[in-house]
Amino acid sequence: MKVVALAGGVGGAKLVDGLAQVLQPEQLTVIVNTGDDFEHLGLYICPDLDTVCYTLAGEANPITGWGRIDESWISFDEIRRLGGTDWFNLGDRDLATHILRTHYLKQGLLLSQITNEFCQSWGVKVSVIPMTDERVPTIILTKDGRELPFQEYFVHQRCEPEVQGFRFEGCSLAKPAKGILQAIDNADLVIFCPSNPWVSINPILNIPGIRDHLSSKKIIAVSPIVGGQTIKGPAAKMYSELGIVPSSVAVADTFRGLISAIVIDNQDASQTTQINAWGIMTLVTNSIMKNRLDRKRLANELLDFSVLIL
Amino acid sequence: MKVVALAGGVGGAKLVDGLAQVLQPEQLTVIVNTGDDFEHLGLYICPDLDTVCYTLAGEANPITGWGRIDESWISFDEIRRLGGTDWFNLGDRDLATHILRTHYLKQGLLLSQITNEFCQSWGVKVSVIPMTDERVPTIILTKDGRELPFQEYFVHQRCEPEVQGFRFEGCSLAKPAKGILQAIDNADLVIFCPSNPWVSINPILNIPGIRDHLSSKKIIAVSPIVGGQTIKGPAAKMYSELGIVPSSVAVADTFRGLISAIVIDNQDASQTTQINAWGIMTLVTNSIMKNRLDRKRLANELLDFSVLIL
Repeated sequence: MKVVALAGGVGGAKLVDGLAQVLQPEQLTVIVNTGDDFEHLGLYICPDLDTVCYTLAGEANPITGWGRIDESWISFDEIRRLGGTDWFNLGDRDLATHILRTHYLKQGLLLSQITNEFCQSWGVKVSVIPMTDERVPTIILTKDGRELPFQEYFVHQRCEPEVQGFRFEGCSLAKPAKGILQAIDNADLVIFCPSNPWVSINPILNIPGIRDHLSSKKIIAVSPIVGGQTIKGPAAKMYSELGIVPSSVAVADTFRGLISAIVIDNQDASQTTQINAWGIMTLVTNSIMKNRLDRKRLANELLDFSVLIL
Repeated sequence: MKVVALAGGVGGAKLVDGLAQVLQPEQLTVIVNTGDDFEHLGLYICPDLDTVCYTLAGEANPITGWGRIDESWISFDEIRRLGGTDWFNLGDRDLATHILRTHYLKQGLLLSQITNEFCQSWGVKVSVIPMTDERVPTIILTKDGRELPFQEYFVHQRCEPEVQGFRFEGCSLAKPAKGILQAIDNADLVIFCPSNPWVSINPILNIPGIRDHLSSKKIIAVSPIVGGQTIKGPAAKMYSELGIVPSSVAVADTFRGLISAIVIDNQDASQTTQINAWGIMTLVTNSIMKNRLDRKRLANELLDFSVLIL
């Protein structure tokens, strides 16, 4: 059985880690959102890609939800002392990733090649591929008429501006990174991880070719909304600001026409009827992953359930 | 009394620190060699400039002779793990300087402006100016016909290739950084610090305008050669490979026509006759600076001695 998972940051990385515990490395390909990528002090940062890789390497910081475990902040303490910007800190170990990636990108290597090389160094055997090698920055359109690059919205403005919409800059000209379409074509099952539908999964779906190749596939989404809220990040807030009650129903609706089934939490069991009415099957379970065993359990349940739709 | 000092790395930085202990900040301007500057993993490194600034800030690493005191190596340990080059390591605190400087340079700020800003953050009150804002890389011409950028020769090849000559790439088109010519014009005394004549002082002298403005000045050199050897670096080895016996006489000869006097070590006392014969006065003393008090003592002796030539 071959599986392709679409993932954003923390929530997506957790399920990917669960899948990696259950499947053989060659059975799993992870396509990661790069719409959040940005430059900070001239360094090229890929927050979702790094979170997925660090999580798979067992080196993600479990407290912050980003960056590395056992991290120190010596360089950035000095950068602050020198008057550098202080709204986005990078740890010393994390910094190595950004310095070397920025250097390799300038030398002309592709992000997907660099990611592949880094994964080998980190002992990550699963295939992790950025959605594209081009730069497709997600822009948040706010109700007060501003256009904010994602990290500006997410980190600097702490997701406070009200959201009106999204723009995936340059996405119409972008190409999926090498191996993505082939992995989708070869997949028996595609999983939309419990990542933000608006700014993690949709950016991937908007890379030309990906949605077309997914159209003939069996897809199971995992709702990142539980009890009307998100475990982490602004997904629920975004649904509300777009005039949609945040719920698993809303997530299913976002992906209607594309997904065959959705995994929702026990708290949302009452929403199954409405979702099923759209021809979308539901797996109702404990979808909250508090530790590595939870991740493995959810991955197992999901794969067992998938037999029903394959 | 106004003093301008020309300096390279470690030896120069020590005397500059001595002068800074003796003079008021507004009395001293330091012009620093940038011929050693290079890029490493996309970061712009200025070895001599940083050594001078860190030394003046009291933060130079006294053991390595470069980089920062209380340094850690977390980022570069990770970079090595990721397969990055390992022939030139940068400490975590030092890294902050290079990341922010590279970022500011890309934004269009001048190296001299950045240096000035950093010095304020570091509490360095003396005026420290890179010799030029342009890039003028020193190239080592080797006897086996290679042209090695300085750091490649110095760090990677450990100064092993035999030297045939030097080229200061692009120097004919470079301009002295703002404030340099004015500082020279206003100076009562110019000091050539005990830095490598070939690759620290000569690159500065070759920036158009600097030698001309120095021609009417009283200049005292401090010999970096003591007992036929250098305290640090390849100056003596270079003299030998160029067919010149390394000595204080040789240093005086290198700067003949430009300097009024030279400070030489007690070990070289016998060389005074030959140097004096060229119309160059000599101050014979203990010129080895083992600690901060030595630096202050030598600076005081040099300034006292300078009264004889002013």
